[in-house]
Amino acid sequence: MTADLEARFRAGERAALARVLTLVENDPNVHETWIGKLPPIGRAKVVGITGPPGGGKSSLVNRMISAYRQRDRSVAVLAFDPSSRLTGGAALGDRVRMMETWDDDKVYVRSLASRGRLGGLSDAVFGALRVLEAYGVDVILIETVGVGQGEIDIADIADVTVLIQVPGTGDTVQLIKAGVLEVADILVVNKADLPGAERLYRDLSSLVHEVDPKPGAASVVKTSAAENQGIDELICQIEGRIASKAEGMKARRAAAELRHLVLSRAERRVNRQLRSPEGVALIDAVARGELHPQEAIERLGSWGS
Amino acid sequence: MTADLEARFRAGERAALARVLTLVENDPNVHETWIGKLPPIGRAKVVGITGPPGGGKSSLVNRMISAYRQRDRSVAVLAFDPSSRLTGGAALGDRVRMMETWDDDKVYVRSLASRGRLGGLSDAVFGALRVLEAYGVDVILIETVGVGQGEIDIADIADVTVLIQVPGTGDTVQLIKAGVLEVADILVVNKADLPGAERLYRDLSSLVHEVDPKPGAASVVKTSAAENQGIDELICQIEGRIASKAEGMKARRAAAELRHLVLSRAERRVNRQLRSPEGVALIDAVARGELHPQEAIERLGSWGS
Repeated sequence: MTADLEARFRAGERAALARVLTLVENDPNVHETWIGKLPPIGRAKVVGITGPPGGGKSSLVNRMISAYRQRDRSVAVLAFDPSSRLTGGAALGDRVRMMETWDDDKVYVRSLASRGRLGGLSDAVFGALRVLEAYGVDVILIETVGVGQGEIDIADIADVTVLIQVPGTGDTVQLIKAGVLEVADILVVNKADLPGAERLYRDLSSLVHEVDPKPGAASVVKTSAAENQGIDELICQIEGRIASKAEGMKARRAAAELRHLVLSRAERRVNRQLRSPEGVALIDAVARGELHPQEAIERLGSWGS
Repeated sequence: MTADLEARFRAGERAALARVLTLVENDPNVHETWIGKLPPIGRAKVVGITGPPGGGKSSLVNRMISAYRQRDRSVAVLAFDPSSRLTGGAALGDRVRMMETWDDDKVYVRSLASRGRLGGLSDAVFGALRVLEAYGVDVILIETVGVGQGEIDIADIADVTVLIQVPGTGDTVQLIKAGVLEVADILVVNKADLPGAERLYRDLSSLVHEVDPKPGAASVVKTSAAENQGIDELICQIEGRIASKAEGMKARRAAAELRHLVLSRAERRVNRQLRSPEGVALIDAVARGELHPQEAIERLGSWGS
């Protein structure tokens, strides 16, 4: 982080924001020096958007950007694509196309790779949130892929979590199996023009009521990104949820940030240890059954960091 | 672990196996004392089965059990269901039904909750593998849900990783986005009797060839669990892959086991710290922007374990 870059970032230069976010993603040291000293989320609203691949998340996010711009809010999108082991990067084709759509300096779309094992998000998300808050963004949409741990992490970070479902991809009971219903504030039936959308909407509505009959239970909203329908209703639901949850989320997000920082540091350390000649020897001994795994990790622990 | 339970386990008593696996799941101490001293996987073959919810994994696994039993192999299934935050457990309805189907002492089906953030598996999997190897099981099928980090973990553990896809759940290009193609050895087009199966098969085949044109690239197999078709072909592909990969997998699995043990220990420690009064005070200070996160984790680190 140079003084020049910081000055340009403080002056609101978009290219400087892009550079800073690249540092967030690639340079763990900048977290320990500069980014960790930025204020946490205060003014900005954080909305998590999650759902299975093929659910039309990117199109819906595009419609949401339009809706927020009509309300004169600036919007940033952080999209987490699962990273590829071989290439070390994410498949960015459709994301790049999405960014090209917006010629508006109040919209900023950024794709971040979800490295490592942190449930679809990397700890870059915490640095990115601090950077976007400092930049003065009004609304931050965090888009994650997949059904699994990803949603659980996003629910620790976002003021409100939106789960997208589409008709025709399996029984709604699978949602319970996946344990995601309990972390979503709003369930979206997207592609509501497809056959089966009405039934999915009814099933989800009764499922929500079964799991949690209280007034604070998740809402269910129908949208069609293709036909630009239901977007205002979705934004309205999001605003309502944020109003009721935002204060409690600040501590929950801070706890998640600390947990991620500690575990990322532990992960970097153990990966470094296991790649070293001593680590490889320990792995081989465990693989051959000559060393018990607990004994191996005691030896790892005694190396220091 | 009592001497009596150990004796009954060593004698091959199924009820004792069930009790030991319950200890694996619920008692971290038993890993440090007894289970960590069992030998690693040597004779048993480990097959990972993964795919999105609604892909028919359970039915396919049932057919695979039959096929292995016809070949006179004993089979254990470890099924990881994402755990529910509220209930702390997994939705076990269909799993229980599946277990009831088998009145055969060479088949053992077990559902394990995937606690925490370990990509759909918990480190219970490593203990369970050692227990099943010691019990003398021939084939261990590990079933995980979801598209995301789960597959990547399973590929570190299983001798061969099978990814199930079904027609009509989105473009195949989503597979690349999800980064899973590179960790799967065998791609299964399940529900091959549905419309679109032929096209999915062709798309996957050319996709595999594009990503990795070498002879060792992933195979694509069509199955129909409902009609019991393609199962022999799948088993045959699995056997072939295991033969070529098994040696290298032993070290990869040992490395994953050590990494998981270290990180689980770190996770238990940080969660304990963050729940303590000192931890809650640190979280609040970070949430209010009065303390930088790096400074907070330095203070956590200085508490010792």
